[in-house]
Amino acid sequence: MKQAEIRSDIAWATPKKVVIHGLDLCEEIVGKIDFGQMAFLQLFARLPEERELRMFNAMMVILVEHGITPSSLATRMTYAGAPEAVQAAVAAGLLGLGSVFVGSLDNAARLLQESLPDPDNVPDIDALARQIVDDHRARKEILPGIGHPFHKPVDPRAPALFRVARDVGYDGPYIRLMTAIGKEAEQKLNRSLPVNVTGAMAAVASEMGVPWQICRGLAVSARAVGLVGHILEEMRQPLATTLYLRTEHEASAHLIPKADQEEP
Amino acid sequence: MKQAEIRSDIAWATPKKVVIHGLDLCEEIVGKIDFGQMAFLQLFARLPEERELRMFNAMMVILVEHGITPSSLATRMTYAGAPEAVQAAVAAGLLGLGSVFVGSLDNAARLLQESLPDPDNVPDIDALARQIVDDHRARKEILPGIGHPFHKPVDPRAPALFRVARDVGYDGPYIRLMTAIGKEAEQKLNRSLPVNVTGAMAAVASEMGVPWQICRGLAVSARAVGLVGHILEEMRQPLATTLYLRTEHEASAHLIPKADQEEP
Amino acid sequence: MKQAEIRSDIAWATPKKVVIHGLDLCEEIVGKIDFGQMAFLQLFARLPEERELRMFNAMMVILVEHGITPSSLATRMTYAGAPEAVQAAVAAGLLGLGSVFVGSLDNAARLLQESLPDPDNVPDIDALARQIVDDHRARKEILPGIGHPFHKPVDPRAPALFRVARDVGYDGPYIRLMTAIGKEAEQKLNRSLPVNVTGAMAAVASEMGVPWQICRGLAVSARAVGLVGHILEEMRQPLATTLYLRTEHEASAHLIPKADQEEP
Amino acid sequence: MKQAEIRSDIAWATPKKVVIHGLDLCEEIVGKIDFGQMAFLQLFARLPEERELRMFNAMMVILVEHGITPSSLATRMTYAGAPEAVQAAVAAGLLGLGSVFVGSLDNAARLLQESLPDPDNVPDIDALARQIVDDHRARKEILPGIGHPFHKPVDPRAPALFRVARDVGYDGPYIRLMTAIGKEAEQKLNRSLPVNVTGAMAAVASEMGVPWQICRGLAVSARAVGLVGHILEEMRQPLATTLYLRTEHEASAHLIPKADQEEP
Repeated sequence: MKQAEIRSDIAWATPKKVVIHGLDLCEEIVGKIDFGQMAFLQLFARLPEERELRMFNAMMVILVEHGITPSSLATRMTYAGAPEAVQAAVAAGLLGLGSVFVGSLDNAARLLQESLPDPDNVPDIDALARQIVDDHRARKEILPGIGHPFHKPVDPRAPALFRVARDVGYDGPYIRLMTAIGKEAEQKLNRSLPVNVTGAMAAVASEMGVPWQICRGLAVSARAVGLVGHILEEMRQPLATTLYLRTEHEASAHLIPKADQEEP
Repeated sequence: MKQAEIRSDIAWATPKKVVIHGLDLCEEIVGKIDFGQMAFLQLFARLPEERELRMFNAMMVILVEHGITPSSLATRMTYAGAPEAVQAAVAAGLLGLGSVFVGSLDNAARLLQESLPDPDNVPDIDALARQIVDDHRARKEILPGIGHPFHKPVDPRAPALFRVARDVGYDGPYIRLMTAIGKEAEQKLNRSLPVNVTGAMAAVASEMGVPWQICRGLAVSARAVGLVGHILEEMRQPLATTLYLRTEHEASAHLIPKADQEEP
Repeated sequence: MKQAEIRSDIAWATPKKVVIHGLDLCEEIVGKIDFGQMAFLQLFARLPEERELRMFNAMMVILVEHGITPSSLATRMTYAGAPEAVQAAVAAGLLGLGSVFVGSLDNAARLLQESLPDPDNVPDIDALARQIVDDHRARKEILPGIGHPFHKPVDPRAPALFRVARDVGYDGPYIRLMTAIGKEAEQKLNRSLPVNVTGAMAAVASEMGVPWQICRGLAVSARAVGLVGHILEEMRQPLATTLYLRTEHEASAHLIPKADQEEP
Repeated sequence: MKQAEIRSDIAWATPKKVVIHGLDLCEEIVGKIDFGQMAFLQLFARLPEERELRMFNAMMVILVEHGITPSSLATRMTYAGAPEAVQAAVAAGLLGLGSVFVGSLDNAARLLQESLPDPDNVPDIDALARQIVDDHRARKEILPGIGHPFHKPVDPRAPALFRVARDVGYDGPYIRLMTAIGKEAEQKLNRSLPVNVTGAMAAVASEMGVPWQICRGLAVSARAVGLVGHILEEMRQPLATTLYLRTEHEASAHLIPKADQEEP
């Protein structure tokens, strides 16, 4: 748990040089690699191959923007109170990326990675899927990564991501297992439960070797980019103040005694 | 200030479709554009031209990783206490990107954009630089964007960024003004004060039309990517617990009366 | 700026003892002093006298709860996404306590403390107030601490706080100066501009010797208590999901082409 | 899950009045109740009785200050980067109050409350404790609320809190159960495992009727008060910059090639 040594292998700097994961920032990074490659470098401590980069980019772009969500509203509310602290507005929006909205990504990736600890040693996928579905039903636990309350019958983002995976040659056991889980669940539960964007992301991240514990980190960093777009819009076309005043009025109107209600 | 209407023009979704800034997520974004293009789209509501994308990527990659900083330490300390909430660890690291470390980027961009409100109508750059330096000296204010306490005599990241700017055809008035401010300051103050990474970023962002108010947002979103790398390392090779225990001991040892000091 | 030494004088611990600001936690704090005294101890490194405690409590209780605000909505939105991370929900709500909502407290306290650096050496208060009002009008700056957009004509919290101040014997120069600024502004601007809760807080905090830089900290810590109340209510009687779904619909409806609008 | 109505019962305001949990802020709160009572009001929607208040104060004061911790270091690191955003520094320190440091409070309270759902209908406490210890051992799970790595053999805060509980008349089944769990574990595991501060807090909170889901909220709001003390000290006697520079040097020195090592 503890270690006496304090050591980080990510970066070093001298007055003349900055080196990140072994690459010279000024000579080998700036102007040479793009934002997607840099994000990959930061996660894997090496540059991606072409196919890895295409897959990684597809995952990251899908996570950037989800419209008006609890997350973007927290960002906009925070910006309304502290426009001088843009970093706080971004942070506030990230804080709700927890068990409800992004946690299912961790859960799905964990399920896949713990069920298939060695992707080079793959058992019967259909039997494994059946066992997973049965186990979850027995424990009355929700299966992560399948079905969607809004994107019905099919979450269109899942096939879009799987299409890229096929194109670049990722069609390994995690994607097959995730798909098999969806099919098995549909049969057992007798309703449409195709793989959703979360399940697709989890499968692809597992194919790429992203540990499940850090999948949420991918979502969080991509969303940080998206939240800056919401701050920019809030700056030009604010909605937070109107929304909070309306909400305050609606939420508390029932409490105000007649005698205290003011003339308009 | 307020507006009665609640309206956002960023994205919309139906069960079958997600559209972001007019592009269909599944048909036109996933597998078609990369993470850098997506970040640009989110900020400018349009895809970048080739040269814009190269410039934008160069800015973003330079901001991702700065090694062990107060920001990455806040992330690691938070992860040590709440490893289940990766989003909180990223957010904690972003919160210190304020006036001391990233604020100078806003300040430099603001100075450039307010001094040159119309980049198509450019006055004598040298005279403008002289006036800016004189004004700051008269008000005893620090000039943002020049000099660096560690990267001496030259912050190597500034020429690296300017090199990309020249390569892709950005060598407009904001870069010229920032450079002229550095030269003028060196003459007036008689010491080496070349443009630093912040000044270079501010100049390039101004050339690209990024409003100064959102420059900090670029830094914040790029750093979110970097902080995930620190979480990954903290997960595998932790330093936070050792560091806090050592610090606790060192910081409070002088307070403990002899009678209360325990045998080891 | 830097210091070689790492030292903190707040607390120390041995296996048998915890001591905070010189008081033994188990013998002299738990069961002996209350939450208000503890908060005072933490800020002033000593226990309050009776009158200080009454004044401090009056300030703290006024800051705890402000109903549905951008701050409490950010907390509720965050809780909706990450109910397992209550700490993140509280933090999200604190992040917007910036220049718009709480910053005026810092500004008012700073104005008072810089105008009256030595409370034992008080100049003509009315003349000082006149000069402050004139200076602000000349610079077209807003005077902090007077007037209120909602609590008109009088913010009832200001006289309530001043009443306690009088009762416990705080009626010193900062309260007189704040009041004089309000009167002077009313005359000059010819409209009702009495001291508001922020101005009253700033004056009382200045009387108590709270440095203006930490006034925001008082507000932040009191509000943390309030936000836990909102989390508790959100747990039992949620509003965040309804609010975000409604807002999403209202904000983006205008973007959806007719052909993509689904049957209900 | 969702509800169509948006409603909050905490507070309402008119221009002339602010009412919180049914009490008029200006007439019944300011100058009438103290910070501890206000915090209780916010959590229980009613004022405490005398004994409840004494117990609640004892819990809150114990949570305020823990010296140099990952939490206070995150606050100080954030303050070093964004001294203008005190709210962000407090928030950063709260974010790490998760499963490692405060989560055991939730876990202990949950264990007690789920084991004893009806405090008026109490089974054989010793038998219940035995079963709990056996269950945890069988599942190889850690028992929350007993033992302490630093405060050995006894965490002095637990008996301090229990002393107050006895004094004010709280010596109910949750405290008895927690104590019995400690004793049972000591016997079974054959080492000293007395109730620690977390276990004591969980037992007392359960006696008072605080739902386990919000116990972390108590800790978070009390700690917000403590973190303001750390900001105040960091303002006057900073340690963050020294600490990060030292850490940066120590952590990355091994990476720098000889040829790049600069003369001092």
